[in-house]
Amino acid sequence: MRKVKTLGLLGTGVIGGGWAARALHFGIDVIAADVKPEMEEWLRGAVANAEPALARLTFAPLPPKGKLSFTTDLREMAARADFIQENIPEQLPLKQKMLAEVSRHTGADVLIASSTSGLMPTDLQRDMVGPERFLVAHPFNPVYLLPLVELVGGKQTSASTIAAAAEYFRYIGMHPLHVRHEVPGHLTDRLQEALWREILHMVNDGVATTGELDESIVYGPGLRWAAMGTNMIYHLAGGESGMRHMLAQFGPCLKWPWTKLEAPELSETLIDRMVEGTQQQAAGRSIRELERLRDDYLVAIQQVLRQFDIGAGSTLRALEERLYQDAAVAPEAVDLDAARPLRLLDTVVRPEWVDYNAHMTDYRYMMLMGDAMDALYRLAGLDEAYRKAGGMYYDVETHVRFLREVKSGEPVYVTTQVLALDEKRLHVFHRLHRRHDDQLIATGEQMHLHVDTAAAKAAPVAPGVRARLERIRKAHSALPVPAESGARVGGARG
Amino acid sequence: MRKVKTLGLLGTGVIGGGWAARALHFGIDVIAADVKPEMEEWLRGAVANAEPALARLTFAPLPPKGKLSFTTDLREMAARADFIQENIPEQLPLKQKMLAEVSRHTGADVLIASSTSGLMPTDLQRDMVGPERFLVAHPFNPVYLLPLVELVGGKQTSASTIAAAAEYFRYIGMHPLHVRHEVPGHLTDRLQEALWREILHMVNDGVATTGELDESIVYGPGLRWAAMGTNMIYHLAGGESGMRHMLAQFGPCLKWPWTKLEAPELSETLIDRMVEGTQQQAAGRSIRELERLRDDYLVAIQQVLRQFDIGAGSTLRALEERLYQDAAVAPEAVDLDAARPLRLLDTVVRPEWVDYNAHMTDYRYMMLMGDAMDALYRLAGLDEAYRKAGGMYYDVETHVRFLREVKSGEPVYVTTQVLALDEKRLHVFHRLHRRHDDQLIATGEQMHLHVDTAAAKAAPVAPGVRARLERIRKAHSALPVPAESGARVGGARG
Repeated sequence: MRKVKTLGLLGTGVIGGGWAARALHFGIDVIAADVKPEMEEWLRGAVANAEPALARLTFAPLPPKGKLSFTTDLREMAARADFIQENIPEQLPLKQKMLAEVSRHTGADVLIASSTSGLMPTDLQRDMVGPERFLVAHPFNPVYLLPLVELVGGKQTSASTIAAAAEYFRYIGMHPLHVRHEVPGHLTDRLQEALWREILHMVNDGVATTGELDESIVYGPGLRWAAMGTNMIYHLAGGESGMRHMLAQFGPCLKWPWTKLEAPELSETLIDRMVEGTQQQAAGRSIRELERLRDDYLVAIQQVLRQFDIGAGSTLRALEERLYQDAAVAPEAVDLDAARPLRLLDTVVRPEWVDYNAHMTDYRYMMLMGDAMDALYRLAGLDEAYRKAGGMYYDVETHVRFLREVKSGEPVYVTTQVLALDEKRLHVFHRLHRRHDDQLIATGEQMHLHVDTAAAKAAPVAPGVRARLERIRKAHSALPVPAESGARVGGARG
Repeated sequence: MRKVKTLGLLGTGVIGGGWAARALHFGIDVIAADVKPEMEEWLRGAVANAEPALARLTFAPLPPKGKLSFTTDLREMAARADFIQENIPEQLPLKQKMLAEVSRHTGADVLIASSTSGLMPTDLQRDMVGPERFLVAHPFNPVYLLPLVELVGGKQTSASTIAAAAEYFRYIGMHPLHVRHEVPGHLTDRLQEALWREILHMVNDGVATTGELDESIVYGPGLRWAAMGTNMIYHLAGGESGMRHMLAQFGPCLKWPWTKLEAPELSETLIDRMVEGTQQQAAGRSIRELERLRDDYLVAIQQVLRQFDIGAGSTLRALEERLYQDAAVAPEAVDLDAARPLRLLDTVVRPEWVDYNAHMTDYRYMMLMGDAMDALYRLAGLDEAYRKAGGMYYDVETHVRFLREVKSGEPVYVTTQVLALDEKRLHVFHRLHRRHDDQLIATGEQMHLHVDTAAAKAAPVAPGVRARLERIRKAHSALPVPAESGARVGGARG
C-alpha cells in the first residue's frame, strides 16, 4: 500500500467532516468529492469547528497541517487520493454503485474504506475492481476526537489490506479494532443498539423520560465505561474469583425480565469463554490491582467533570459547597496561635500529580499553595459573592524552593504565614510538609495584588477583608521571618 | 425523619462495605449487623481499601470520620441506627423476612432502604411495620466513588420518605435518581443488562472475545457516556434539528438485526416523547454549544487516561511517542540563532486550566515552563533511556512573575534561555508569550540540579548531554541577561 499523503473522501456530511479534520490535523492532505458544490463551504466550516478541540488533544510536535481541496468530480478525487474513505448514505445499492465506480478510477494499490455503521463488507465490495483492497472502517462521533475505528474485511478482503489500514489509522491517532467476523452492526453498534432499544421501550412504556435514562448512565456505569468495559467491570465485581463468581451469582438474573432482550443459555462453554476472556484481559493483574486502577481513574475523571460542572462533576461541586458551608468559621473565631502559622490545607498526593519519576511534579507544589491561598481567602471573607462584586487578589509573583520529593498517596499539609499587608499588596509564605513526620518538603513565597477585575487594575481591598487579614498578620508578626524569604534564585537572601 | 448520625447495615459484602466506607468518610457512624462474625474483619478491610481513593475525591473540609462497630445481633443494630440499609442476598422471601424483622425493632421515624438490584419495593415492604418508611436505594460499584443511587418507592411508600432519603444520600455525596415507576431492574440495570446480554450473545455465537467487546466500548462510546447519555449524544449527532432528524435518519435501522433485541414501533407519540425529552435536557443550549461541552470533556478525559496509560489514554501515548520520534532533530542540527532564545513549546490554553476568573490559573504557568524544559531535555538527548539509566534533572527552585492574564483558547508559546551550566546545575530563564501579538505574559527563572535517581543525590550530568547543553549556553551567552533574573520576590534584583 502507498504511504497516505492524500486522503480522498467520497461524500462529506458529519462523518466526512470528522475524517477531514482528523487527517488534516495530522498532516495529511484531503480531497473531498461531493455531488453538491455547496458542501465545500459546509465542510470547511466543520473542519474549522473541530480544530479548537483537536488542537488541545496533544502537545506533541505536529507536522504542518494538510491542505483541503474539494471537487464535484469523483474521478478527480480518485486520481489524486492514496486512500479513499466513503461516507455516503446508508443504502446498499447506492454504496455498491459508487464504490464500484470509484474503484475503476484508482490505482490498484489505493485502499478503499467504507464508514458504514452496519452494512457488510462482502456485500459492499461485490462489484468493485480489486475488491481485496476494500474494507469497512467504522468511526464514532466526533470522529476527530474518539480513537475507535472498527475494521471489518469482507470475503474478498486481503489480510494485508487490514494490516495496512490499521497502520494508517494509527498514524492519525486512532485505535483500530479488527472485527474478525461480519455481523450486522459490527461490534460496537450492536452493544449500543441494545441499550438504545431498551431506552426506546422505557420511554414508550412511559416508565422514564430521556433525561432520567441519561442520568441513569452518566452518574454511574458511564463513568466506569470511560476506561473499562462491562466484562472487566463485572470481573472486578466478582471478588477474588472474578468473572466465574459473578456468573454464578448473577447467572439466575439472566432469566429475569430486566430487559426485553432474552439472554442466551449460560452453558459451560459460554462460562468458560467469559472466564478465559476476562483472565486474558486481566493479564496477570490481581483484582486488587485492577480495582486500584479503576478507583484512580474514577476519581480523576470526576475531577475533570467538576471543572466543566457536568454530570458527576456537578454532584461533587454541590457536595463541596455544602462541606465548605458546614466548616465555615466566623473569621473572628479563628484560633490564631501566634506560635505557628495557619494550617489551612491537609490533603493527599494524587496519582495523577506524579511524573515519570513517581514524584510529585513541580507545578503541583504551586497548585497546593494556591489551594492554601483559597482557604486563606475564605477565612478572610473573600468569597464567591465578593468575587462576583469584582474584587480579587491576583498572584503576581511566586518563588518555590523544592527541598524534598514526595510520592503518590502521601498525606501532606500546607502552612501559611502572612508576612506583610497594605491596601493592595499581600505578602505570604507557605511551607509544604509531609504529614507523617512533619518534614518540610517545599517553601513558597508569594506576592498577591488586589485588583478590580472589571477595570482590570490594582485597587484597594475591602476594609472588612483587610481587617481580617490584618488580624492574622499581627498574630504572625511574632513569628520569625523565614530564612528563605527575600532570597533570589540560586543565591542567598538579596 | 431523624438526622442520620448512625447508619445501620443489614448484611455486609461488597455493597455493604461500600456503604460503610462512604458514610464513615462523611462523618456518619456505622453499625453493621451480619450473622457471620468473621465479616467484621472483612468489613474493616473493605473500608480501609476504599479510603485511599475516597481521600482524594474532594479537598473540601470534612467532619471527623465516623466510627465503625459490628454486631451479630440485628436488634442491637436496629436499636442504634437512624437509617438502615439492607444488603443481603437477592432472594425475595429472605429479604421480606429480614426487612419485616428489622422493622419491628426500630423507631417509626427510622427509614429503611434496600440495596436490591432488581426486586420491587412493593413486594419487599409487604410484611413490614411502617412500610411507608421503606424504599429501594440501589447503588453502583464502587459504592464509595460512584454518585448514582436509584430511589424507588413501593405502593405503600410515602412521598416524604423519598424526599428525606434523597437528602441523606446527597449528604454523603451522591446523586439520587427518583425512579417513578416500579419495573424489574429499575432503570440503570435494564440498560446495562441489555448491553450485557448482547455481549453474551456475541461471545456465545463466537463473534468476538470479551476483550474485543470491551475495546468496542472504551475507545468510543464509553468516553462519551462519562458525562452524556445516549439520548443527549444522539441529539447532538442529529445536526441542527437534533433528535428529530436523528430518528428520521436512523429510524429504519430499528428494523435491522443490529441486536437480538427488537425495538418498539417508532410511533408519532414515541418520537414526540424522545424529541421533547431531549429538548428539555438541552435546556435552551444550542447543538453547537453542547458539542463544545462534549468536545471539551472528551479531550480532558483522554488527558486523564493518558496519565494512567489506560484505554484511549494509551492510544494517545503511542501517538505522541511517534510524533516525537518523527519530529526528532539531531541536537547538532538545531538551529541556534544567537539573536533569540529557543522557542520549544507552542500550545493553546485549555479550558480546564482556567479558574473562576476565566484566566489561566497561576500553577499552569509553571506547568508550561515544565513542558518547555521537557522539550529542552529531549533536545539535549536526555530521553527516556537516559532516565531509565538513572539520570535526571530535578527542579530545585522556580521564580515566576505573572505579568498579564491569559484566557482559555489563547495560543501561547514559551522561549527558554540557558543562563548557566556546570557539571550539576542548570540555570534557565523562560518567557511565556501570547502568540497573536507576542506580548510577554510571564517570566520564570529556574535552577535545576542533576541527580542520580537511584542514590537520590546530586551527580554530574553525562558528558554528551552536557556538551549539547553547553552548545546552547554558548549561543545564548550573546543574549542580554534578563532584567528579572536574580530578583527576589517583591523587590528588584538582589
